[in-house]
Amino acid sequence: MGKISIKELAKELNLSISTVSRALSDSHETSSETKRRVKELAEKLGYQPDIHASNLRSRKSKTIGVIIPEITNSFFSLAINGIEEVAREKGYHVLIYLTHESYDQEVGISKLLLDGRVDGILMSVASETTDSNHIEEFHKRSIPVVLFDRIFDEFQTLKIITDDYRCGFRAAKHLIEKKCQNLCYLSLSEHLSIDKRRKQGFLDAAKHHQSSVIHCAQTDSENEDILRSLLSKNIPDGIFASVEKLGITLYEVCKELEISIPEKLKVISFSNLKMVTLFDPPLSTVTQPAFDIGKEAATALFRAINNGFLYQDNEEIVIPSQLIPRRSSAIST
Amino acid sequence: MGKISIKELAKELNLSISTVSRALSDSHETSSETKRRVKELAEKLGYQPDIHASNLRSRKSKTIGVIIPEITNSFFSLAINGIEEVAREKGYHVLIYLTHESYDQEVGISKLLLDGRVDGILMSVASETTDSNHIEEFHKRSIPVVLFDRIFDEFQTLKIITDDYRCGFRAAKHLIEKKCQNLCYLSLSEHLSIDKRRKQGFLDAAKHHQSSVIHCAQTDSENEDILRSLLSKNIPDGIFASVEKLGITLYEVCKELEISIPEKLKVISFSNLKMVTLFDPPLSTVTQPAFDIGKEAATALFRAINNGFLYQDNEEIVIPSQLIPRRSSAIST
Repeated sequence: MGKISIKELAKELNLSISTVSRALSDSHETSSETKRRVKELAEKLGYQPDIHASNLRSRKSKTIGVIIPEITNSFFSLAINGIEEVAREKGYHVLIYLTHESYDQEVGISKLLLDGRVDGILMSVASETTDSNHIEEFHKRSIPVVLFDRIFDEFQTLKIITDDYRCGFRAAKHLIEKKCQNLCYLSLSEHLSIDKRRKQGFLDAAKHHQSSVIHCAQTDSENEDILRSLLSKNIPDGIFASVEKLGITLYEVCKELEISIPEKLKVISFSNLKMVTLFDPPLSTVTQPAFDIGKEAATALFRAINNGFLYQDNEEIVIPSQLIPRRSSAIST
Repeated sequence: MGKISIKELAKELNLSISTVSRALSDSHETSSETKRRVKELAEKLGYQPDIHASNLRSRKSKTIGVIIPEITNSFFSLAINGIEEVAREKGYHVLIYLTHESYDQEVGISKLLLDGRVDGILMSVASETTDSNHIEEFHKRSIPVVLFDRIFDEFQTLKIITDDYRCGFRAAKHLIEKKCQNLCYLSLSEHLSIDKRRKQGFLDAAKHHQSSVIHCAQTDSENEDILRSLLSKNIPDGIFASVEKLGITLYEVCKELEISIPEKLKVISFSNLKMVTLFDPPLSTVTQPAFDIGKEAATALFRAINNGFLYQDNEEIVIPSQLIPRRSSAIST
């Protein structure tokens, strides 16, 4: 009998390669029923884990590449802590690249990393990114890719995200519960799939209310202008900032224009900053499990690196966020 | 006549190698008088820049290593932006390593990087670090090192820092001007040279006043206990937090204990966070030129890499910080 591969097990069971791999390594993400099915078949067919899988590619760099938009954002710095913890355990080096939200930079960096310098890629795409040709090149060279947070829908791989649609939905619902009538969603980029999902959730929950979407820009100074203009005319009474930096800029502009939060305007923002509790007033947040998302993405990437496979199906692992209400969205008494 | 090296020029002029290198590359940090002297002698002795210097070492990795204590700290994330900007211009990759303030981790990471994986090292030492044997190994292998911010005094190299003594001095002076009588300095680590300098400046300015030093720990939860204990007995009326995370924890504990800032206690903290203006009350800060420190450190490192020399003298480039008074240290009216 020939050697059985994970791929063949997966095909036989009609499961994805990564699910089979997870089941074989007793991952907590896999149901015990799936584990049982996988292990039974593995035993029946005489599957042997390939202990030399990690030497399959001609040269191992013992390095992974992390491509992210920016680092001065609490989500990414916490996610890197998670990635780095896993890499350290595995004895791997971590190369970090910042795209500064630029598609051209992202393409340039990706090209640099095709030369065998890295054994795998973790990536959160730039807000400008509208195609995935450069990401596909990694798979063509057998370099596994795991996307996290800022995923690109059309590229087939494993994606570690939060429950973005539900976060948008719950934020709008929360503002409505706090008696807001005129809701507004601050969007970072129409291209970003996570932004689309957050927005759709928000608009679906707000469908019986007045609601609008404001498209923001990339720089803080442009966004100050956009928000100044918004708040100096028809003021919404509830705003959801879909990324941390928009929430911060919104607070700054409200302070400048002396618009009192939460009396005149209720605010909720995506953020991972612990120090929002020190804000005046403390900011209500949708808080992502940033560290866990980084850790999960890195763990999944090492699964592919060490077992010599690519994630080629569209799979998502969803780690839910938490809505934490604070005074910025409270009913003023 | 034999080939004249930068080293010989430096010896002849009684200048450091890096000063000569900077003068030859028309750096703005060098006085025009020094530039004139260097260039005159270079011409007289027939000095020719070695355009192959960048190929002197057998293998170029086109990668630099950055070793820092943590990334969820606005100073380091901004400094990395500065480092990354310079590296990108030079076509270099940046490997980032986090020591999490651990000496053992720092030693382990340093060993990993001796294998030719990097052409140079930028480093900010962990608060636990008390010897520099592991850093010296880099020089022994002809890998240039530039220290920034968290320097290690005994290790001879180029160091990019801020005016730490003066920052401590000015913080105490500021609190005294705001009528504080009982000053307190929050220290992160007795081992850190920047902490010693900040503390010395603080104590010198406060010498005619009551003043104390509180030694903090590494984790936020330990520091909460330390500060809770400090503030529940003999409360100082002016505190200077020597690092951002201590300032944040102090604010949190004051909030918990309902100690009003600035009425009962005036606070000033090292911080690079723009969002301290949103705190309740806005936090007075000593703000480092973090981006510029990163940029300067990287520029200096590439000078050594491209000209094939090591910084072996104890040289410091000082980029001053700014004291920005806000309501947390204002005289309450």
